[in-house]
Amino acid sequence: MPERPGGRTARVRASVLRAAGDMLAERGFAALDLGELATRAEVGRTTVYRRWGSVAAVVADLLLEMAAESLPRADTGTLLGDLRANARLVVRTLTDPRQGALFRSMLAAATSDEATAAALRRFYTTRIAEWAPCVTDAVARGEVPADTDPEEVIRAVSAPLYYRLLTGTAELDETAADRAAEAAVVAAKAGVHRRGSGSPE
Amino acid sequence: MPERPGGRTARVRASVLRAAGDMLAERGFAALDLGELATRAEVGRTTVYRRWGSVAAVVADLLLEMAAESLPRADTGTLLGDLRANARLVVRTLTDPRQGALFRSMLAAATSDEATAAALRRFYTTRIAEWAPCVTDAVARGEVPADTDPEEVIRAVSAPLYYRLLTGTAELDETAADRAAEAAVVAAKAGVHRRGSGSPE
Repeated sequence: MPERPGGRTARVRASVLRAAGDMLAERGFAALDLGELATRAEVGRTTVYRRWGSVAAVVADLLLEMAAESLPRADTGTLLGDLRANARLVVRTLTDPRQGALFRSMLAAATSDEATAAALRRFYTTRIAEWAPCVTDAVARGEVPADTDPEEVIRAVSAPLYYRLLTGTAELDETAADRAAEAAVVAAKAGVHRRGSGSPE
Repeated sequence: MPERPGGRTARVRASVLRAAGDMLAERGFAALDLGELATRAEVGRTTVYRRWGSVAAVVADLLLEMAAESLPRADTGTLLGDLRANARLVVRTLTDPRQGALFRSMLAAATSDEATAAALRRFYTTRIAEWAPCVTDAVARGEVPADTDPEEVIRAVSAPLYYRLLTGTAELDETAADRAAEAAVVAAKAGVHRRGSGSPE
């Protein structure tokens, strides 16, 4: 239903999503309970059940809000500068105690809950689309081949950072961020991330 | 205790680990119960409780067995050939219905269970060490700089494939495998994966 920004409905949503994020970060998806969430958010249970109806729906709404509130793309004038900003933002997010735990919880939930997997896919698709113009701009500047796949380059920046988060096999720090950005730029310039490429023989 | 290969103790272990892998793939870590595992493995509950004692210990043992039984590194004569074999093996594993579900379950469990996280870290460390000589050989052949970090190159091959598994934002197929291998080679040749590098300005 239509509502004024900052109206009661918006305040209820903000309160429920904040509590859901806290609980997910603290205890994970499996321990999230709508009744307890209502108590913690200081919102009526009926409101929470009527408006969201399931834990997966709350998580999907939280991801929508997170995508809407995420930082816009960088515009530093070079592909390396932009992708380094992206990589450092990913590292800051994943190493933040609350945000890191929240992402781990949601990634874990997505492995067994299809609604959460779909919501997470939408979240990453939105974030990748936000940063893809960094690559389009680099194409326009002649930094990378014209048929470079912008989404593929942005995914290539995040991938080593998420791999570190999930396998724990290497540090997740600024050095890792800068290396991820540099690897993506070098590969893009060499034409590895051209649309439809992958088996160049 | 010492035992003959193929003796009763080895058969019990094989049976319990097979059942654990099946149950993890089907229902995930949280639903794994030692008593039910014993029933499914057709092994006495006392044996299972005495020998492993916890679900996390069974999962850790399963990961040890998986690491021991994984394929050895390729030796094709070129870094691209070797890394492509590695990437295709990762894709085959992660897209296999049972193995893919098993890895998803274990990665999810590792986000909230420290013992499983440590076991998974050991698994990946073992696998990375198995493939790292592909990079050392490439250094010896002069394909990549002498101070290239072999583990970092191997991680760079797997990362985009795990990112696809977990975010669902792109296909996890042979094209993705070949692209991951090619990107790792191009970046290694350009010196991005040198030890201690990451901020080359």
